Amino acid sequence: MNKYTNIHDVANIPETIQEAIQLKENPFSHKNLGVDKTLLMLFFNASLRTRLSTEKAAKNLGMNVMILNVNDTWNLEFEEGTVMNLNKSEHVIEAAQVISQYADIIAVRAFPSLTDKEKDTSEWILNSFLKYATVPIINMESATMHPLQALADAITIEELKIIQKPKVVLSWAPHPKALPQAVANSFVKMMQSLETNFSITHPKGYELNSKITKNTPIYYNQKEALKDADFVYAKNWSSYESYGKVLHQDSDWMLTKEKLKTAKFMHCLPVRRNIIVEDAVLDGENSVVIQQSANRVFSAQIVLKKILENL
Amino acid sequence: MNKYTNIHDVANIPETIQEAIQLKENPFSHKNLGVDKTLLMLFFNASLRTRLSTEKAAKNLGMNVMILNVNDTWNLEFEEGTVMNLNKSEHVIEAAQVISQYADIIAVRAFPSLTDKEKDTSEWILNSFLKYATVPIINMESATMHPLQALADAITIEELKIIQKPKVVLSWAPHPKALPQAVANSFVKMMQSLETNFSITHPKGYELNSKITKNTPIYYNQKEALKDADFVYAKNWSSYESYGKVLHQDSDWMLTKEKLKTAKFMHCLPVRRNIIVEDAVLDGENSVVIQQSANRVFSAQIVLKKILENL
Amino acid sequence: MNKYTNIHDVANIPETIQEAIQLKENPFSHKNLGVDKTLLMLFFNASLRTRLSTEKAAKNLGMNVMILNVNDTWNLEFEEGTVMNLNKSEHVIEAAQVISQYADIIAVRAFPSLTDKEKDTSEWILNSFLKYATVPIINMESATMHPLQALADAITIEELKIIQKPKVVLSWAPHPKALPQAVANSFVKMMQSLETNFSITHPKGYELNSKITKNTPIYYNQKEALKDADFVYAKNWSSYESYGKVLHQDSDWMLTKEKLKTAKFMHCLPVRRNIIVEDAVLDGENSVVIQQSANRVFSAQIVLKKILENL
Repeated sequence: MNKYTNIHDVANIPETIQEAIQLKENPFSHKNLGVDKTLLMLFFNASLRTRLSTEKAAKNLGMNVMILNVNDTWNLEFEEGTVMNLNKSEHVIEAAQVISQYADIIAVRAFPSLTDKEKDTSEWILNSFLKYATVPIINMESATMHPLQALADAITIEELKIIQKPKVVLSWAPHPKALPQAVANSFVKMMQSLETNFSITHPKGYELNSKITKNTPIYYNQKEALKDADFVYAKNWSSYESYGKVLHQDSDWMLTKEKLKTAKFMHCLPVRRNIIVEDAVLDGENSVVIQQSANRVFSAQIVLKKILENL
Repeated sequence: MNKYTNIHDVANIPETIQEAIQLKENPFSHKNLGVDKTLLMLFFNASLRTRLSTEKAAKNLGMNVMILNVNDTWNLEFEEGTVMNLNKSEHVIEAAQVISQYADIIAVRAFPSLTDKEKDTSEWILNSFLKYATVPIINMESATMHPLQALADAITIEELKIIQKPKVVLSWAPHPKALPQAVANSFVKMMQSLETNFSITHPKGYELNSKITKNTPIYYNQKEALKDADFVYAKNWSSYESYGKVLHQDSDWMLTKEKLKTAKFMHCLPVRRNIIVEDAVLDGENSVVIQQSANRVFSAQIVLKKILENL
Repeated sequence: MNKYTNIHDVANIPETIQEAIQLKENPFSHKNLGVDKTLLMLFFNASLRTRLSTEKAAKNLGMNVMILNVNDTWNLEFEEGTVMNLNKSEHVIEAAQVISQYADIIAVRAFPSLTDKEKDTSEWILNSFLKYATVPIINMESATMHPLQALADAITIEELKIIQKPKVVLSWAPHPKALPQAVANSFVKMMQSLETNFSITHPKGYELNSKITKNTPIYYNQKEALKDADFVYAKNWSSYESYGKVLHQDSDWMLTKEKLKTAKFMHCLPVRRNIIVEDAVLDGENSVVIQQSANRVFSAQIVLKKILENL
């Protein structure tokens, strides 16, 4: 494996999930693999779970970790052919090549603008690093994808499912701010790749990119969608069609204990309590959000392991 | 030991001081103890000494260290039962549980507001982590306590004292800004726990919390208090009664060579020169502030060692 | 070696360049040298290459690395004898001594003001650390010098030169902002110390400090200067005489493929494309800027190695 930018960079997803579960049983079992290898984590945006879990994963493998908050340096230019006479001090063409001299693997987090649909969809930041860096790239959440999260989610479902083909529902939920579609997109793609009974529910106008949802069933009626669900994944996203807009904040879509019944409750976190989901759910025994966050270490660790083995 | 939030979390303080002095002689003697263990340092506030000395202590023990400036992520919510529709993106209930998945020990620095006495006194931030984290918590200065500093101070006195029961005086000193009472509080508790002749001097109105000072003698006359002192610990704090107020900036209370005579001069640093204390003292041979800062490594290291031994 | 503040702190520069080239062939060959040793990197200013390459160099030698952005703490006072009643919380006298307790080597980056020529020329920040720290100091770019860059540049020329005494030209180039003279100064001193045919070209008014340029030939005619050059080092700097001023932004001075002919193109980065140099040069086969950045690791590593060997 020579990159992990979307979930399909892993050759065999079900096998990878099993390998991650094995790593979790013995996190330090491959501590020699990363010796004298360096992971550089590059943040264009804030991070708590992704930062700490990926750093932990790398250290579990014996790697050195260097962290750079791009905001602590200067603005990077991404347009090619431009005359750099304004506020951008360095072009990604140089930056990506330079940091490739200092690291064996580069992990990048860069959120979408949510204002320029075409640019966001083109994944201009992530793809610039893919184009110019000379070492493997890991996506720590890009404009449209969050594949480390999706892999952790799949590990969690695999650990908890009690029937072979569980019913999994991705439910939109309200939020006061405009959020990216990345987590939802990657979760959809992951569920399409596994043996699940998967559907999506959201208000009209919140359709995700149809190139991603493909033929996954979509329900505008949340109650109908949640019926007999084994796992409910709550997540807010802003509109894809009315790009980046918050069309709807109706608390009717908040996930409640009454709606969820016996379904396991999933969320990538951070989660706004009593907006996305009520306290009773998060504090109840069916919430698996902390287990999901624990599995972020092992989704990152199995990805790093596969890339290290291929260096 | 399963936490260090105040000085009494250490079972036997005099014995711990001796153990710290032994660690100082051979800082790398327990380098295997921390292998595959991670310290997560969480900063809600700025830090120089605490950050570097605690990181050094952990690495002396062979630990991995991860550092998170909370300001680089997003605001945490601490109120329970609230509807999170404003500027807080994640509740400490999740945050503390999540980071407990990534670390074996969590160290937290969170200063008081100095505006809400009741809330500060309740130690709401520190206690939220104690309540929700599932790994040991170390206090790197909270609203009302700075126990790592107090332990370093006690080590320093133990190293330097030439009589069994030295006279130690904590003297308030002026400062242009409102500062917390945490250092003073923890130093008072530490001196009460050791065999010293201890007293406090400050202007009227600067009484510390009487539940902490208890029956420690308090002098409003600095000159009288400092008479024949072996150690003088200077520190500014804002008023506890007129909570968080700067009542007095009178340079009469500045510590001078003339006032100190042969007493050792102590301060936790950072110190404002020629406000708290005159240059002649800090640059003189009786200043032990650098030795105190060196001992911050070993107060942290003995605490980490005792917690690691108990994991 | 007990410090590296300018290029002459290295006893024998040509020998050091050869040693660095050897380290590059086997970066982990001295991994035991830094065990239980700590490098503290202190940043008063932003950094990308310097930060990552120096951290990598230290870890290649087995060192621990601690990083402190001074802006994340509080303002330091550098004036001696002052009454600290304003916005400076800690004096460098204490700060430098304190951090010397936590580290075996301290590396400092502190840019010039470009407004106070006398103060900048005095190297007040770097020299305060030299004066008060009790461990070796490494200059990660100070007000007037960038010796780690100059050493990396010399390594690059040594690797690439095909005649014993190549013609090397330092050419000023335009830039919209006022930049320090540090890189140019250290490169000039380095070229003067090696067997090269070295000259400088810049518009009138951009003369560097004559105590540094000494008898190095200076051309105001860029075309004449670049004739038959083997290496052209482009760099902007603000005026030294009209201190810190941008006198000239004329794009006539931009480096182009036509001007450079077969000369190798050098720059320390970050570089503004199509302002300092046109795309065709940076993207062409004669650009060696990425190799220069790779050599930053080995200039730092040979310096750290020599200091560690002397601890």
